Amino acid sequence: MGKFCFGIDVGGTSIKLGYFDATGTCLEKWEIRTKRENNGESILSDIAKEILSKIEEKNLNRADCLGIGLGIPGPCTEDGYVALCVNLGWGRTNVVKTLSELTGGFKVAIGNDANVAALGEMVQGGGKGYQNVVMITLGTGVGGGVVLGGKILTGTVGAAGEFGHILVNPLEESICTCGRYGCLEQYASATGVVRIAKKLLENNKESILYEQRERLSAKGIFDALAKKDEVANQAVDIMCEYLGEVLAGVATVIDPEIFVIGGGVSKAGKVLIDRIKSSYQKKVLNVLQDKKFALASLGNDAGIYGAAELIRTR
Amino acid sequence: MGKFCFGIDVGGTSIKLGYFDATGTCLEKWEIRTKRENNGESILSDIAKEILSKIEEKNLNRADCLGIGLGIPGPCTEDGYVALCVNLGWGRTNVVKTLSELTGGFKVAIGNDANVAALGEMVQGGGKGYQNVVMITLGTGVGGGVVLGGKILTGTVGAAGEFGHILVNPLEESICTCGRYGCLEQYASATGVVRIAKKLLENNKESILYEQRERLSAKGIFDALAKKDEVANQAVDIMCEYLGEVLAGVATVIDPEIFVIGGGVSKAGKVLIDRIKSSYQKKVLNVLQDKKFALASLGNDAGIYGAAELIRTR
Repeated sequence: MGKFCFGIDVGGTSIKLGYFDATGTCLEKWEIRTKRENNGESILSDIAKEILSKIEEKNLNRADCLGIGLGIPGPCTEDGYVALCVNLGWGRTNVVKTLSELTGGFKVAIGNDANVAALGEMVQGGGKGYQNVVMITLGTGVGGGVVLGGKILTGTVGAAGEFGHILVNPLEESICTCGRYGCLEQYASATGVVRIAKKLLENNKESILYEQRERLSAKGIFDALAKKDEVANQAVDIMCEYLGEVLAGVATVIDPEIFVIGGGVSKAGKVLIDRIKSSYQKKVLNVLQDKKFALASLGNDAGIYGAAELIRTR
Repeated sequence: MGKFCFGIDVGGTSIKLGYFDATGTCLEKWEIRTKRENNGESILSDIAKEILSKIEEKNLNRADCLGIGLGIPGPCTEDGYVALCVNLGWGRTNVVKTLSELTGGFKVAIGNDANVAALGEMVQGGGKGYQNVVMITLGTGVGGGVVLGGKILTGTVGAAGEFGHILVNPLEESICTCGRYGCLEQYASATGVVRIAKKLLENNKESILYEQRERLSAKGIFDALAKKDEVANQAVDIMCEYLGEVLAGVATVIDPEIFVIGGGVSKAGKVLIDRIKSSYQKKVLNVLQDKKFALASLGNDAGIYGAAELIRTR
């Protein structure tokens, strides 16, 4: 049988669960719905039930369980607490203690979901083979995670790697979700690049994007870029200029080995990486220019891989 | 007698040496001239001689020597090499091996001087009591160092903490020492704030700084600020706005406990800290606003304290 562990990615819509062997290979994965009702009070007991049933179903020996790792969509502290988790309906919660009790004493480790995904990409994904990895996730928002020496950098208040809220344009007049103006997320997220393109379309009605302006998506913009549409070209350029600038700043602070670009927008692939890298190289010290850039490769599974790693290497 | 060690700060003009006990207390310090002649070939043997004489003078037992720590003005790698050190005239040099041989086998550890100074400030200076410290040094240039979990973050190519070369103004037309345009160092160093003030003086001849425009210094500008001079006020504001912006970015990447501000310009004291903090708080995520800001307190001794710490805690 051998040792085993569980890696779990707790999202606002669904909970992804993975059953792993001691080498970090995923043997099975499945999903359940996230019950946010009553401030998400059943979420941890639902997870405990899934784990205990899996152990029974596979006829596993409890003594062989290394433990349970979880990625949580909120700031996590070293002592096992989640400070606040709007997406799950939680206030301050001692996740480690509660889940350990619910599973009859299994070891539990937690981390912020973006950080845990970065760890997953380091172990099995785009950053495989490296120990010092910066991951930036371009989704609805822009998130990120920092792994140094193979370990997640959490930060004092759990906010390390929040690259989406680095100021890039002090002149911006639209407000960011964080309440300030000119954050990276306003340009480099899926919603951000759409916002930029819509603005450009006001003076560019001949663009092939003009027809779809009411239902514009990041994918639509990258498709139009492939057809050499000028509005798409400009929108992607603005996005990548700011991304390169922020990653140049990040490199000047922590000097990592590799940048891994993930999230829905990263499906755009090579064209995105090439433009980010070109902007990065213009804006960074010579000695830092040779950093590697890779696409994330685990997609939605990065979280369960990273979560398993949290517990596997403790 | 007890255990002891040496902390050494190798500068382009002078070498500062400290003799420390095992608790990190400096028992004696002294300086020698840096002989840069012949590509600085005698620097390491000069240091070895000083150490061996001190051991003889104090009648110390060689077996009690924990080793020698050195801060070097160049990028250092984990394996004990300095890649290149223009200020000392060195090419690639194996400092650890050479100095160890010259001293009859003492343990040697090295680090970049800015990083080592940050470690020194963490141990005995403005960052005392903290383990996660960002130090920024405002001198002729702008340097810095990052300490995480009590250890220096060196970075993959030894460039972590080079805050002076983070881009802050893409519209800048003057060139930076690094060959690019709009780096923090162009505004926030002693030379930077003088440059800004000189520009402002072109249209503000009534300023009390106008008379001294040919021999303007950072100190002169802060003195004029105390007298409510408007050019001084604007120059310091530009400097502190950019500093706050960069430290907000740094906090969003690594979320440290405290920022320590050092270097000659930091003698301006509270007014500098207050303005940097005010800019920082405007530009950073709410969750990161409560960071501590402190002045460096070891001055030119930060290097020897940090260098001793390199070896003391190995």
